[in-house]
Amino acid sequence: MCGIFGVAGHREAANLTYLGLHALQHRGQQASGMVLWDEGHIREVVKRGLVVDVFDDKALQYLNGSPSGAAGGLTIGHVRYPKREKHALQNAQPLCVSYARGPLGVAMDGAFVNYEEVRCQLEEKGAVFQSETDAEVVMHLVAHAKAPAVEASLIEALGHLRGGYAMVLLAEGKLIATRDIYGIRPLVLGKRDGIWVVSSETTGLDLIEADFVREIEPGEICVLQGGHLESHFPFAKAKRACCAFEHIYFARLDSEVFGCSVHEARKRMGAALSRVHPVSADVVIPVPDSGVAAAIGYAQAARIPYEQGLIRSHYVGRTFIEPQQSIRNFGVKLKLSAVRSVLNAKRVVVVDDSIIRGTTSKKIVSLLRSAGVGEIHMRIASPPTEWPCCYGIDTPSRAELISASHSLEEVCTHIGADTLAFLSPTGFKEAMQPANGFCDACVSGRYPTQLP
Amino acid sequence: MCGIFGVAGHREAANLTYLGLHALQHRGQQASGMVLWDEGHIREVVKRGLVVDVFDDKALQYLNGSPSGAAGGLTIGHVRYPKREKHALQNAQPLCVSYARGPLGVAMDGAFVNYEEVRCQLEEKGAVFQSETDAEVVMHLVAHAKAPAVEASLIEALGHLRGGYAMVLLAEGKLIATRDIYGIRPLVLGKRDGIWVVSSETTGLDLIEADFVREIEPGEICVLQGGHLESHFPFAKAKRACCAFEHIYFARLDSEVFGCSVHEARKRMGAALSRVHPVSADVVIPVPDSGVAAAIGYAQAARIPYEQGLIRSHYVGRTFIEPQQSIRNFGVKLKLSAVRSVLNAKRVVVVDDSIIRGTTSKKIVSLLRSAGVGEIHMRIASPPTEWPCCYGIDTPSRAELISASHSLEEVCTHIGADTLAFLSPTGFKEAMQPANGFCDACVSGRYPTQLP
Amino acid sequence: MCGIFGVAGHREAANLTYLGLHALQHRGQQASGMVLWDEGHIREVVKRGLVVDVFDDKALQYLNGSPSGAAGGLTIGHVRYPKREKHALQNAQPLCVSYARGPLGVAMDGAFVNYEEVRCQLEEKGAVFQSETDAEVVMHLVAHAKAPAVEASLIEALGHLRGGYAMVLLAEGKLIATRDIYGIRPLVLGKRDGIWVVSSETTGLDLIEADFVREIEPGEICVLQGGHLESHFPFAKAKRACCAFEHIYFARLDSEVFGCSVHEARKRMGAALSRVHPVSADVVIPVPDSGVAAAIGYAQAARIPYEQGLIRSHYVGRTFIEPQQSIRNFGVKLKLSAVRSVLNAKRVVVVDDSIIRGTTSKKIVSLLRSAGVGEIHMRIASPPTEWPCCYGIDTPSRAELISASHSLEEVCTHIGADTLAFLSPTGFKEAMQPANGFCDACVSGRYPTQLP
Amino acid sequence: MCGIFGVAGHREAANLTYLGLHALQHRGQQASGMVLWDEGHIREVVKRGLVVDVFDDKALQYLNGSPSGAAGGLTIGHVRYPKREKHALQNAQPLCVSYARGPLGVAMDGAFVNYEEVRCQLEEKGAVFQSETDAEVVMHLVAHAKAPAVEASLIEALGHLRGGYAMVLLAEGKLIATRDIYGIRPLVLGKRDGIWVVSSETTGLDLIEADFVREIEPGEICVLQGGHLESHFPFAKAKRACCAFEHIYFARLDSEVFGCSVHEARKRMGAALSRVHPVSADVVIPVPDSGVAAAIGYAQAARIPYEQGLIRSHYVGRTFIEPQQSIRNFGVKLKLSAVRSVLNAKRVVVVDDSIIRGTTSKKIVSLLRSAGVGEIHMRIASPPTEWPCCYGIDTPSRAELISASHSLEEVCTHIGADTLAFLSPTGFKEAMQPANGFCDACVSGRYPTQLP
Repeated sequence: MCGIFGVAGHREAANLTYLGLHALQHRGQQASGMVLWDEGHIREVVKRGLVVDVFDDKALQYLNGSPSGAAGGLTIGHVRYPKREKHALQNAQPLCVSYARGPLGVAMDGAFVNYEEVRCQLEEKGAVFQSETDAEVVMHLVAHAKAPAVEASLIEALGHLRGGYAMVLLAEGKLIATRDIYGIRPLVLGKRDGIWVVSSETTGLDLIEADFVREIEPGEICVLQGGHLESHFPFAKAKRACCAFEHIYFARLDSEVFGCSVHEARKRMGAALSRVHPVSADVVIPVPDSGVAAAIGYAQAARIPYEQGLIRSHYVGRTFIEPQQSIRNFGVKLKLSAVRSVLNAKRVVVVDDSIIRGTTSKKIVSLLRSAGVGEIHMRIASPPTEWPCCYGIDTPSRAELISASHSLEEVCTHIGADTLAFLSPTGFKEAMQPANGFCDACVSGRYPTQLP
Repeated sequence: MCGIFGVAGHREAANLTYLGLHALQHRGQQASGMVLWDEGHIREVVKRGLVVDVFDDKALQYLNGSPSGAAGGLTIGHVRYPKREKHALQNAQPLCVSYARGPLGVAMDGAFVNYEEVRCQLEEKGAVFQSETDAEVVMHLVAHAKAPAVEASLIEALGHLRGGYAMVLLAEGKLIATRDIYGIRPLVLGKRDGIWVVSSETTGLDLIEADFVREIEPGEICVLQGGHLESHFPFAKAKRACCAFEHIYFARLDSEVFGCSVHEARKRMGAALSRVHPVSADVVIPVPDSGVAAAIGYAQAARIPYEQGLIRSHYVGRTFIEPQQSIRNFGVKLKLSAVRSVLNAKRVVVVDDSIIRGTTSKKIVSLLRSAGVGEIHMRIASPPTEWPCCYGIDTPSRAELISASHSLEEVCTHIGADTLAFLSPTGFKEAMQPANGFCDACVSGRYPTQLP
Repeated sequence: MCGIFGVAGHREAANLTYLGLHALQHRGQQASGMVLWDEGHIREVVKRGLVVDVFDDKALQYLNGSPSGAAGGLTIGHVRYPKREKHALQNAQPLCVSYARGPLGVAMDGAFVNYEEVRCQLEEKGAVFQSETDAEVVMHLVAHAKAPAVEASLIEALGHLRGGYAMVLLAEGKLIATRDIYGIRPLVLGKRDGIWVVSSETTGLDLIEADFVREIEPGEICVLQGGHLESHFPFAKAKRACCAFEHIYFARLDSEVFGCSVHEARKRMGAALSRVHPVSADVVIPVPDSGVAAAIGYAQAARIPYEQGLIRSHYVGRTFIEPQQSIRNFGVKLKLSAVRSVLNAKRVVVVDDSIIRGTTSKKIVSLLRSAGVGEIHMRIASPPTEWPCCYGIDTPSRAELISASHSLEEVCTHIGADTLAFLSPTGFKEAMQPANGFCDACVSGRYPTQLP
Repeated sequence: MCGIFGVAGHREAANLTYLGLHALQHRGQQASGMVLWDEGHIREVVKRGLVVDVFDDKALQYLNGSPSGAAGGLTIGHVRYPKREKHALQNAQPLCVSYARGPLGVAMDGAFVNYEEVRCQLEEKGAVFQSETDAEVVMHLVAHAKAPAVEASLIEALGHLRGGYAMVLLAEGKLIATRDIYGIRPLVLGKRDGIWVVSSETTGLDLIEADFVREIEPGEICVLQGGHLESHFPFAKAKRACCAFEHIYFARLDSEVFGCSVHEARKRMGAALSRVHPVSADVVIPVPDSGVAAAIGYAQAARIPYEQGLIRSHYVGRTFIEPQQSIRNFGVKLKLSAVRSVLNAKRVVVVDDSIIRGTTSKKIVSLLRSAGVGEIHMRIASPPTEWPCCYGIDTPSRAELISASHSLEEVCTHIGADTLAFLSPTGFKEAMQPANGFCDACVSGRYPTQLP
């Protein structure tokens, strides 16, 4: 779960990338980075922290180069969500190396299922690894390829890899953008001032006032230089399998992802949930922010008033210190507050996007109980999450997924709700138009790629 | 506009105050501070920054003292919103001085209308001022008073001052909490573990799981030590005039302020607005976050679907740098994004809490237009703001208040909406139950205190 | 022990003060500060840290004001050595307040012996104190004075105070500089570009290429505006008593203090020591840096080779963390290293400026022993320090001064040297030309002022 | 010019390395780093900054691991001097990678003359480079080697490389230390608590109270595990050519380098200089700190008094900002001050270690002139530096070496001295005992290795 962005040559490429990454910040808050190609020279700023913190005045000045610099740069950028890897800084992206044909920058969202295998093969050939990122494997394969140009080397490299990914590369004065053959991870093309721009989601285009042109197709390799686009489809076609979790939780509400509005999809999930699992209640409330659209959908379909019964604090960051003595376990209370006047003695439908380990849901139920709620009917706008993701979404192992090992009743008892219901697989598929092209491995166990 | 908090003696007074201030963070993000009284010694941490940043591990350890420290401390805390003053750090609170009878700490929300006059009188007597805060005037007056105990000195001091304020003092092992005689600024009493706690709003009590006991009364001076409360009413009673802007905009949705739920009041304002200024529309959306409850109230009363058409970014802080070249004026776009699928070609009612200068509304309208909205009907859940506040709310001068000098039509044209309507004074009073005790000087020009 | 600096109006007053304070950094490393008067407005930067850290790009830009600002500012600056006070930041100087006649800034080196008494009297009159500095007492007295101009108020204020001090004030567009009537603490006048400059030592003038003009006289009050100087002597004359410790240890080797070269004075002390306490030895080495000049003096007089047997690390700051496990007590080894080839099997004379608690000398002897020194003859270029300073030098209480309670033999045994000798009072006076005007209370117990 | 350090397994390896690097800080102030091997796991802290800043409490805790950790770790550490490379952080060392046989850490002092050639060959084989360090080339060669153990791989790797270097590696639970076959760069072996320790200079052993055992021999590869040492000499012997610049300038005065005391060598150079280039003078002063020992040698041999005529500031760091307006070029004055009483109207011999570009010498002469010096006789305790170093000393290109293109008279005129003299090659060789084993390429142009 990361966000990627790129500009194929623009006098303000660094500024546009800065803004684009800011609009993708929800896809990763641990580290932010940008690499800029300026006539064969590379400038690089990659650091832990939010976009607004990493790209301070000094960093932007450095990336923008000399104020008189006439020619425009090409950029790739990345925001990173912490994954299985141990070393935060080393794994921050874009990665940037020098190889036989010059500098090479790579930023990637997603994961390869045969990462370990390919890494071992490369190490056998003498490769040394400085990070634990999937992106570094791509770099080594590109460097070992025999092709004369970077796009051909990349095609050769990707032939060895299997997984779900969206990726941007910078080399030889070109921006290359590509997606896996299933289209698991999202990536869109836009244009501003006649120049190509790529972004994980359309929200990145909207902020910089670029026009949305189209998705990059599954398996497509786009070579972008200024306003020029060269498209390659070197691999056999596969059945489209776009990640359903983007619509369930991950993408931003104002984005269009895989050709479908995130907001509309979530509303449809909420409405479907209401039809399949209705309940007599006084009020429908969301778990903010990811449950809002589904809750509105539920409330409208069920004709129960929608209310804001939980407020999310704007001031909780990673740095919050919980006092160390007897006052503990404030956890969710620091982040969410209950609005007593909405909740007191009411029968409440609480709509959330998913249940992973069950710990957050349990805390929310407890918070609502102490605000005097009468009945709590938890409604989840997706089917139970029973399988880990192999394509970059940071779900835990099967052992930690509560629905993988517990019945609906057990989960309901665990979280302390009066009733609990999930969206059915059928209702889910209908809401996810076009339903026939999605990867729902996390709820079905059917993975689009071969697994190792 | 500030938040204040205090604990009248508790082993974890510092931790409780830290959490309480976090829950009041919406009342001020510029500076945070705490003063702790530990058996005659004072510890003090006052700094620019959010509560989570100012009170890091080291600061909390310092405030909590030695781990074996048995006796509990008394605390006062403050979060600060920047006001007319120039020097951010010096004006951060609580202020802490040493005077003839020992250490004295003061934190205040509000303002004195005769500040300049009293400050001049004090300077004539030889007082030197190190800040531009109203709180410092109180300190000098207390120090110049002839009374033998701090509560009597405070009464003497307040006799010279006129304005709207809530205040906490720490001296002689006592926590003193007081409000102006009109009750303009809010302050509530709670109890946890049998110990008195004070907070600007009930949300500060909720987070630390203290029980709400009652408001501090207008003109009441509460002397608190552990579980003991001594109440004084030394001044003539005045007509109750609680600040309406707390309910319009400032207080948190989950708080009960002046004995009235903020959420309910805002919903009533929205509903009243709908009745008086109905419009044919497809969807009602709020300007997040302050417009949410009023928008829900409007939508329910008007039976028009409520939607989340604007999303607020969680990642915009004070440090955001706007790129310096041609890409400018991103302003509101960095903070708010439009959800195109909700808005495109729709007739939209946009509900906001108030219009001050008109600049933000204008940007929001422009943002909505570029998302393809059909018609924009701006509805404001309070009457036009035409008068500056003298009691601590940071409204600009009359010359900058757009409604003070422009007609409704002119404002509508300026912001670019298709129609614009404000809540009428009558509808406003009805929504603000009990309507007969509010200060609405900002919309009526009727100030409860004499002005200089 | 602090350093003060001031410029009486100059387009680059802030830059000059920045450089001047840098040259006085040896007088205080805990906090640095500057206040600038710009046509009635005050700018202020006061912070913990070295001059180079406190005055970064942003701070200097702020102090220098708008680049088009034509008129020159007046400045006072301060570097602070930690004293008896507890709160580092509050006690950082210059202090800056607003009083009846406008803004007032004060920076001071030294101490008042009747500080407690005067502070109590002020508190009885209603004064509130925000720091524990002697300078704040001056401010309150100035504010309570009835005089029409600040220089008259200052004279009235100083009439209540007794001690050793050098001080700079900024008020009413004037820079006022003064010293106590005994001339205990140093302060010199210089000129650059026709503008008056004041500095604790001449090294501050040298760095900014200002010409040294003269000392400010004991008891003199200089009112400086640009190139204009107005001199007042409002107090009865006293016997001159310049602080001997400035020459022993505190002032910089390249300064002229009290009309006498520090370097020459130290060399004379070393030479005198050699005559009175000769010893057969192979080599003379200093404890760097304060013992260097005296060691050269000793070596030249004794005709024994001078060597650099101890090296001082440039990289030890306040932040050095000693590992927490079994490897401890590296203390002096982190700061000083022994040059084995100079020391091995040699009879060594080690020259230091003074012995306070004896702990450092003991560690140095141990360090030398482990480098294989044959004999260690410790020679101290001043008489035993037996009395605490009341005038701002941070010597500990009598109980901690090893020479106050131990005989020469006991001290020698304690530190582990083979022989130990101090400069005699007579030799000391001769070296300190003009000997008849010095305060040697720390070695004689004869304090020039009445004590409380 | 870097410092390296290592410990072959010790419960306090991290603390010992921290202290050792502190003692080597003079060899590099730009970046500091340490890698620790703890039973197959690697911990790594590498950052810009001084040792005391990089290894704060948190970093040392991390490196020391869990407090109950019983087994001792192996460490390598590095302090870095900025070289020809562009990217400071990436080039900080130790480098740490993962390759086919596990983790590998490398830290190096020195340079390979065939770096570009070998890097190109590696890139042709598909290697990707993340830094511009010589150490990274070693890593890639080790990873490409076919040998079964890391020491054999290293031997294979070094077979491809030519240059002057000292290096420490960490892999497979072993610490490997090696020097080039000429012994150009220094590296010594010590023991503490029976455990092997390696350090660039003996000063690193002294601080941690390790015993000096011997130099690592030119071309020796030492495999160290705890108290076990395995020595390999896989390469043909070469004529010993230890870097003369270590004694001229670079090593610390208290170190023994290449079996010879640095202090003694410098004193001999000063004495030789005095014999060959005597002058009638009143005083001999050093340019601190590197000229001190040579100046003492000169003064003793010439029987002219030695004095401290220039003082070096302890407070000038990399962060010093020179004011931006008319007060400029303070350069050397911020770092050095002249002691007027030593210099005024005197005939002064100024002893420095070398002249590189001539700019510093010119500033020093100017500083001395403005302090009233009568005559300035500059004496340089080494022959003219006319050739760049290829083995890691950061001398500039020949074009920038003033002595490479200017006659003695021209240099003297340029710097503004009355006379100038360098030590003759003969005098230099005699001082550098044993003279027959030194690399003096920088003064003679005779490089011990073949050049590319």
